[in-house]
Amino acid sequence: MKVKSKVWIEEDGIPVFGEGREYLLELIDTHGSINKAASSLGISYRKAWSYIKTMEETLKIPLVERSKGGIGGGGSRLTGEARSFLIRFERLCKGIDEIVNERFKTIFK
Amino acid sequence: MKVKSKVWIEEDGIPVFGEGREYLLELIDTHGSINKAASSLGISYRKAWSYIKTMEETLKIPLVERSKGGIGGGGSRLTGEARSFLIRFERLCKGIDEIVNERFKTIFK
Repeated sequence: MKVKSKVWIEEDGIPVFGEGREYLLELIDTHGSINKAASSLGISYRKAWSYIKTMEETLKIPLVERSKGGIGGGGSRLTGEARSFLIRFERLCKGIDEIVNERFKTIFK
Repeated sequence: MKVKSKVWIEEDGIPVFGEGREYLLELIDTHGSINKAASSLGISYRKAWSYIKTMEETLKIPLVERSKGGIGGGGSRLTGEARSFLIRFERLCKGIDEIVNERFKTIFK
Protein backbone atom coordinates (compact mmCIF):
# COMPACT_ATOMS: atom_id res chain seq x y z
CA MET A 1 0.00 0.00 0.00
CA LYS A 2 1.15 3.48 -0.89
CA VAL A 3 -0.35 6.87 -0.14
CA LYS A 4 -0.80 9.47 -2.84
CA SER A 5 -1.82 13.11 -2.72
CA LYS A 6 -2.63 15.82 -5.16
CA VAL A 7 -3.09 19.59 -5.05
CA TRP A 8 -4.82 21.61 -7.74
CA ILE A 9 -6.46 24.97 -8.35
CA GLU A 10 -10.07 25.41 -9.44
CA GLU A 11 -12.11 28.32 -10.71
CA ASP A 12 -15.88 28.04 -10.32
CA GLY A 13 -15.53 24.32 -9.58
CA ILE A 14 -13.51 23.63 -12.75
CA PRO A 15 -9.88 22.44 -12.40
CA VAL A 16 -7.61 25.05 -13.96
CA PHE A 17 -4.11 24.20 -12.78
CA GLY A 18 -2.52 21.05 -11.39
CA GLU A 19 0.36 18.65 -11.89
CA GLY A 20 -0.51 17.89 -15.53
CA ARG A 21 -0.62 21.51 -16.67
CA GLU A 22 2.42 22.33 -14.57
CA TYR A 23 4.24 19.60 -16.50
CA LEU A 24 3.02 20.97 -19.85
CA LEU A 25 4.47 24.41 -19.03
CA GLU A 26 7.73 22.88 -17.83
CA LEU A 27 8.03 20.93 -21.10
CA ILE A 28 7.44 24.09 -23.15
CA ASP A 29 10.22 25.69 -21.12
CA THR A 30 12.55 22.71 -21.74
CA HIS A 31 11.85 22.34 -25.45
CA GLY A 32 11.15 25.98 -26.34
CA SER A 33 8.27 24.66 -28.41
CA ILE A 34 4.60 23.92 -27.79
CA ASN A 35 4.73 21.29 -30.52
CA LYS A 36 7.60 19.34 -28.95
CA ALA A 37 6.04 19.66 -25.50
CA ALA A 38 2.74 18.29 -26.86
CA SER A 39 4.48 15.36 -28.62
CA SER A 40 6.40 14.38 -25.53
CA LEU A 41 3.08 14.34 -23.62
CA GLY A 42 1.42 12.32 -26.37
CA ILE A 43 -1.21 15.00 -27.01
CA SER A 44 -1.92 17.08 -30.11
CA TYR A 45 -0.63 20.62 -30.60
CA ARG A 46 -4.26 21.70 -30.76
CA LYS A 47 -5.02 20.14 -27.37
CA ALA A 48 -1.91 21.69 -25.76
CA TRP A 49 -2.81 25.05 -27.22
CA SER A 50 -6.37 24.84 -25.91
CA TYR A 51 -5.06 24.03 -22.40
CA ILE A 52 -2.79 27.07 -22.56
CA LYS A 53 -5.55 29.38 -23.82
CA THR A 54 -7.97 28.21 -21.13
CA MET A 55 -5.35 28.71 -18.42
CA GLU A 56 -4.48 32.18 -19.72
CA GLU A 57 -8.14 33.20 -19.80
CA THR A 58 -8.96 31.77 -16.40
CA LEU A 59 -5.81 32.89 -14.59
CA LYS A 60 -5.88 36.19 -16.50
CA ILE A 61 -2.13 36.12 -17.21
CA PRO A 62 -0.18 35.49 -20.43
CA LEU A 63 1.72 32.20 -20.11
CA VAL A 64 3.40 31.47 -23.44
CA GLU A 65 4.85 33.83 -26.04
CA ARG A 66 6.39 33.24 -29.45
CA SER A 67 10.07 34.04 -29.51
CA LYS A 68 11.55 35.75 -32.57
CA GLY A 69 13.12 33.50 -35.21
CA GLY A 70 16.92 33.55 -35.20
CA ILE A 71 19.31 30.75 -36.06
CA GLY A 72 17.11 27.66 -36.05
CA GLY A 73 13.91 29.70 -36.35
CA GLY A 74 11.51 30.89 -33.65
CA GLY A 75 9.80 28.92 -30.95
CA SER A 76 7.67 29.40 -27.86
CA ARG A 77 8.75 30.36 -24.41
CA LEU A 78 7.20 30.97 -21.02
CA THR A 79 6.41 34.50 -19.95
CA GLY A 80 7.71 35.93 -16.69
CA GLU A 81 4.17 35.60 -15.33
CA ALA A 82 4.17 31.88 -16.15
CA ARG A 83 7.49 31.41 -14.36
CA SER A 84 6.25 33.28 -11.32
CA PHE A 85 3.06 31.19 -11.33
CA LEU A 86 5.03 27.93 -11.58
CA ILE A 87 7.26 28.92 -8.68
CA ARG A 88 4.24 29.78 -6.54
CA PHE A 89 2.48 26.52 -7.43
CA GLU A 90 5.61 24.59 -6.48
CA ARG A 91 5.74 26.37 -3.11
CA LEU A 92 2.05 25.53 -2.63
CA CYS A 93 2.65 21.78 -3.15
CA LYS A 94 6.07 21.56 -1.52
CA GLY A 95 6.31 18.99 1.24
CA ILE A 96 2.63 17.94 1.17
CA ASP A 97 3.56 14.50 -0.21
CA GLU A 98 6.20 14.16 2.52
CA ILE A 99 3.74 15.10 5.29
CA VAL A 100 1.21 12.57 3.99
CA ASN A 101 3.85 9.84 3.55
CA GLU A 102 5.21 10.37 7.03
CA ARG A 103 1.72 10.15 8.52
CA PHE A 104 0.88 7.08 6.47
CA LYS A 105 3.96 5.25 7.80
CA THR A 106 3.03 6.13 11.38
CA ILE A 107 -0.69 5.38 11.11
CA PHE A 108 -0.84 2.38 8.80
CA LYS A 109 2.34 0.40 9.38
CA MET B 1 -9.65 30.73 -7.50
CA LYS B 2 -9.78 27.97 -4.92
CA VAL B 3 -7.26 25.32 -3.97
CA LYS B 4 -8.25 21.68 -3.64
CA SER B 5 -6.40 18.65 -2.36
CA LYS B 6 -6.95 14.96 -2.19
CA VAL B 7 -5.35 12.01 -0.40
CA TRP B 8 -5.84 8.38 -1.40
CA ILE B 9 -4.31 4.93 -0.98
CA GLU B 10 -3.08 2.79 -3.85
CA GLU B 11 -2.01 -0.82 -4.19
CA ASP B 12 0.22 -1.65 -7.17
CA GLY B 13 -0.66 1.70 -8.76
CA ILE B 14 -4.42 1.14 -8.49
CA PRO B 15 -6.48 3.44 -6.23
CA VAL B 16 -8.02 1.35 -3.46
CA PHE B 17 -9.26 3.83 -0.88
CA GLY B 18 -10.07 7.53 -0.98
CA GLU B 19 -12.81 10.03 -0.22
CA GLY B 20 -15.42 8.27 -2.38
CA ARG B 21 -15.04 4.86 -0.79
CA GLU B 22 -14.74 6.44 2.65
CA TYR B 23 -18.13 8.04 1.99
CA LEU B 24 -19.61 4.71 0.82
CA LEU B 25 -18.59 3.04 4.11
CA GLU B 26 -19.92 5.97 6.14
CA LEU B 27 -23.26 5.72 4.34
CA ILE B 28 -23.47 1.98 5.03
CA ASP B 29 -22.84 2.83 8.68
CA THR B 30 -25.55 5.51 8.66
CA HIS B 31 -28.20 3.48 6.84
CA GLY B 32 -27.30 0.00 8.07
CA SER B 33 -27.81 -1.12 4.48
CA ILE B 34 -25.62 -1.43 1.39
CA ASN B 35 -28.70 -0.94 -0.77
CA LYS B 36 -29.67 2.38 0.84
CA ALA B 37 -26.06 3.55 0.80
CA ALA B 38 -25.81 2.73 -2.92
CA SER B 39 -29.10 4.55 -3.70
CA SER B 40 -28.05 7.67 -1.87
CA LEU B 41 -24.82 7.67 -3.90
CA GLY B 42 -26.77 7.09 -7.13
CA ILE B 43 -24.95 3.83 -7.88
CA SER B 44 -26.29 0.27 -8.16
CA TYR B 45 -26.14 -2.26 -5.33
CA ARG B 46 -23.96 -4.39 -7.61
CA LYS B 47 -21.47 -1.56 -8.07
CA ALA B 48 -21.34 -0.79 -4.33
CA TRP B 49 -20.86 -4.47 -3.58
CA SER B 50 -18.02 -4.77 -6.07
CA TYR B 51 -16.26 -1.74 -4.49
CA ILE B 52 -16.57 -3.37 -1.08
CA LYS B 53 -15.31 -6.77 -2.31
CA THR B 54 -12.32 -5.18 -4.06
CA MET B 55 -11.44 -3.16 -0.96
CA GLU B 56 -11.74 -6.23 1.28
CA GLU B 57 -9.51 -8.27 -1.02
CA THR B 58 -6.90 -5.55 -1.46
CA LEU B 59 -6.81 -4.33 2.13
CA LYS B 60 -7.14 -7.94 3.36
CA ILE B 61 -9.70 -7.02 6.03
CA PRO B 62 -13.45 -7.67 6.27
CA LEU B 63 -15.33 -4.37 5.99
CA VAL B 64 -19.05 -5.13 5.93
CA GLU B 65 -21.04 -7.89 7.62
CA ARG B 66 -24.70 -8.86 7.49
CA SER B 67 -26.45 -8.26 10.77
CA LYS B 68 -29.03 -10.78 11.98
CA GLY B 69 -32.67 -10.04 11.20
CA GLY B 70 -34.67 -8.79 14.17
CA ILE B 71 -37.56 -6.34 14.22
CA GLY B 72 -37.43 -4.72 10.79
CA GLY B 73 -35.26 -7.52 9.34
CA GLY B 74 -31.49 -7.71 8.91
CA GLY B 75 -29.14 -5.27 7.31
CA SER B 76 -25.47 -4.61 6.82
CA ARG B 77 -23.04 -3.04 9.20
CA LEU B 78 -19.38 -2.13 9.31
CA THR B 79 -16.93 -4.47 10.99
CA GLY B 80 -14.60 -3.30 13.74
CA GLU B 81 -11.77 -3.47 11.20
CA ALA B 82 -13.67 -1.11 8.89
CA ARG B 83 -14.22 1.36 11.73
CA SER B 84 -10.57 1.24 12.68
CA PHE B 85 -9.57 1.74 9.04
CA LEU B 86 -11.92 4.74 8.69
CA ILE B 87 -10.52 6.36 11.81
CA ARG B 88 -6.96 5.91 10.55
CA PHE B 89 -7.82 7.28 7.11
CA GLU B 90 -9.40 10.31 8.75
CA ARG B 91 -6.24 10.90 10.80
CA LEU B 92 -4.19 10.58 7.61
CA CYS B 93 -6.18 13.32 5.84
CA LYS B 94 -6.81 15.55 8.85
CA GLY B 95 -5.67 19.12 8.38
CA ILE B 96 -4.11 18.65 4.93
CA ASP B 97 -6.83 20.79 3.35
CA GLU B 98 -6.22 23.46 5.98
CA ILE B 99 -2.45 23.49 5.39
CA VAL B 100 -2.97 23.81 1.64
CA ASN B 101 -5.63 26.52 2.04
CA GLU B 102 -3.45 28.52 4.40
CA ARG B 103 -0.53 28.37 1.99
CA PHE B 104 -2.70 29.25 -0.97
CA LYS B 105 -3.92 32.41 0.78
CA THR B 106 -0.36 33.44 1.59
CA ILE B 107 1.18 32.61 -1.80
CA PHE B 108 -1.55 33.55 -4.26
CA LYS B 109 -3.48 36.44 -2.74
